[in-house]
Amino acid sequence: MNDELQYDQAEFERQWNILSQGISEITPEDEFAKMLKHSLSSGQPLRVKCGIDPTNTDVHIGHMVPYKKMRQFQDLGHIGIVVIGDYTARIGDPTGKIESRPALSADDVKQYASDYMEQVFSVLDKEKTEIRYQTEWFEGVGLNTVLSWAAETTVAKLVSHDTFKKRLDNGDSLGLHELFYPVLQGIDSVFIDADVELGGTDQKFNVLMGRDYQKHRNKRPQIAMLMPLLMGTCGSQKMSKSLGNYIGIKDEPFDKFGKVMSIPDELMENYALYASGFTMQQREEFNSKIQNGEIHPNEAKKQLASSVVSVYHGEETGVQMREQFERVFAKKKLPDDIPEFKFSEEKKLIELLVEAKVLASNGEARRMIKQGAVSIVDGDKISDTEYIATAALKDQVVKVGKRKFLKLI
Amino acid sequence: MNDELQYDQAEFERQWNILSQGISEITPEDEFAKMLKHSLSSGQPLRVKCGIDPTNTDVHIGHMVPYKKMRQFQDLGHIGIVVIGDYTARIGDPTGKIESRPALSADDVKQYASDYMEQVFSVLDKEKTEIRYQTEWFEGVGLNTVLSWAAETTVAKLVSHDTFKKRLDNGDSLGLHELFYPVLQGIDSVFIDADVELGGTDQKFNVLMGRDYQKHRNKRPQIAMLMPLLMGTCGSQKMSKSLGNYIGIKDEPFDKFGKVMSIPDELMENYALYASGFTMQQREEFNSKIQNGEIHPNEAKKQLASSVVSVYHGEETGVQMREQFERVFAKKKLPDDIPEFKFSEEKKLIELLVEAKVLASNGEARRMIKQGAVSIVDGDKISDTEYIATAALKDQVVKVGKRKFLKLI
Repeated sequence: MNDELQYDQAEFERQWNILSQGISEITPEDEFAKMLKHSLSSGQPLRVKCGIDPTNTDVHIGHMVPYKKMRQFQDLGHIGIVVIGDYTARIGDPTGKIESRPALSADDVKQYASDYMEQVFSVLDKEKTEIRYQTEWFEGVGLNTVLSWAAETTVAKLVSHDTFKKRLDNGDSLGLHELFYPVLQGIDSVFIDADVELGGTDQKFNVLMGRDYQKHRNKRPQIAMLMPLLMGTCGSQKMSKSLGNYIGIKDEPFDKFGKVMSIPDELMENYALYASGFTMQQREEFNSKIQNGEIHPNEAKKQLASSVVSVYHGEETGVQMREQFERVFAKKKLPDDIPEFKFSEEKKLIELLVEAKVLASNGEARRMIKQGAVSIVDGDKISDTEYIATAALKDQVVKVGKRKFLKLI
Repeated sequence: MNDELQYDQAEFERQWNILSQGISEITPEDEFAKMLKHSLSSGQPLRVKCGIDPTNTDVHIGHMVPYKKMRQFQDLGHIGIVVIGDYTARIGDPTGKIESRPALSADDVKQYASDYMEQVFSVLDKEKTEIRYQTEWFEGVGLNTVLSWAAETTVAKLVSHDTFKKRLDNGDSLGLHELFYPVLQGIDSVFIDADVELGGTDQKFNVLMGRDYQKHRNKRPQIAMLMPLLMGTCGSQKMSKSLGNYIGIKDEPFDKFGKVMSIPDELMENYALYASGFTMQQREEFNSKIQNGEIHPNEAKKQLASSVVSVYHGEETGVQMREQFERVFAKKKLPDDIPEFKFSEEKKLIELLVEAKVLASNGEARRMIKQGAVSIVDGDKISDTEYIATAALKDQVVKVGKRKFLKLI
């Protein structure tokens, strides 16, 4: 690359600020700056890769962290490339015994991949996304080529990789084929001409492998942009299906909202950064309000939850889920000793409330309804002073003001 | 296999005695006994495999130890199968850097293989030998299959292999592809339906790998028949080209003879077992004569050297080399201060010897010649008392009795 590049410094800074936020590590950072300048100078968009394992269909919002970064690249004019590991997926991740390997057919993998991409497209810009399948370049590759790829790396290097080392040290089974996954992931980068590869910090080894394979072929080596693993809703371990602390992309919007509400307060800034739909500016305001105590943590969490839902289901749904949550949450706060009132015929609600001695007079009842202080828990506010209590209200709880409840039986 | 096999017990014992001699380890031995009985019962010959690396053309008699065993199998009616590692040879044995790998072409490998086989056929029975090339089964194999083979074994198992472990422990480079050699050697056994695989004791790991791969496919697993590595002529290290202590198959017969003569006495029984052309009976006699002191070590070594030469060049050459060696050896024992005698005209040798004061009288000279005590070093004994010394004897040394020498100039 030429050091005398002609590029728009302001635009470079704008892109740099957006792209470098929320990244644990850019390796090597100076090379990425040069690469970005070169892209601005030449008008050639960057090719930004992220790989997926299509055997995992239960995708959670932790998986979306790199795709949210990819989306930022796309919004700045760059190309996102999703590499579907359909070839390696057909081998599976054995526990060491052949019998236990799930033998996925090509059709299975295709179905999985399409299901996965549908979920990923809740985050990505379809127009600026290339979907590439490993089969494109791995089909037809012979033993000879495989061995020559293998000869480009060493056993010592591979077994120094944390994941492998731990398993070997623990005496856990590690199949020879598994050493190939980093190699094949590296070869992927060669074939799709990746400039940047996105991944979790746990992917560093594999992403750097791609650099090696590109260098061996005199290609410009890709940059590793590594993001932390999203913490699970428990706040103490990474998000993972098996730990049960995850928010699934396929979860109902209401479940997503509730799960965000369950995270510890300390996790809010992290989720604002990696999981919300906040713009950079919104996020900064959000954080500063929390830090300055200008917002109650419960209110902040509702805003956050609304924003997380909006990423996957749109802003309107985000707002609706907040309302729905508040109703249900309210119900949860019902006292244990609610007075009951048995009624056998339809009557005006105001009369009923007086008869049950919740309120002193029809006038007070009418005033409360007008103030919006009377509602059916699990249902709507009552705004009509002429509202008739019918049999449909049997077993419902009427809330009056902040603290009075009446159960109709 | 059926325990109620019908077979000729005497024939079984004959074959067992021949085949099990000179073997360090038969694994598992009881399975081999059953297999041999089954072969005798069914009339189905055993398929006996040995693999070669066709990049090594400088073959020495140490490499022939398993082929001499294979020849014994062949002489008993079984089939020898030489697997030529032409496929893996095209990858080479890198030191870790791609640049340093010898890139052998398919043609190179073919030439090497044919050269190698020519040498091996000095030992094998061509009629009962199948030559198989790995390319038969490895050509056209895809990445998918390679990975599934790899999934049948573990990294822990492979790196426990002495050769690999040592290199990893020493920090020496070990390419990922090298872990594949045992795997591919195992797959070879599957494809050629090997019943027995012959190899050096250092091959145990690889040969047992073949058993695994056959078992995974519900094939009868092969037996490992392992032989010690032949000691080099130095007597302290294994025979190896790089150590310079080897006897090459392509060495001239005379060099082979001389190299056997140079081995330490203690090595004679070992060479008789692994390198000579002795039959079992000849070998037993040979050993017992050495042990009982019935034969001078020098004479024993000549018989041994003669026999080693006969394996590769026929018996007649073996005998000739002994004669030639004895002449040269005699010359080597000439003292440094041999008296010289200048003669300008042809004369009777007896007169010349007296004139030069080697012998006291014509009578004594005549008597010595008759006793066969006069000879031309590097040439023949003089048996004719009327022998005329001509100009052809210029620069020759005449030996008289055990210690008298005369150089004619």
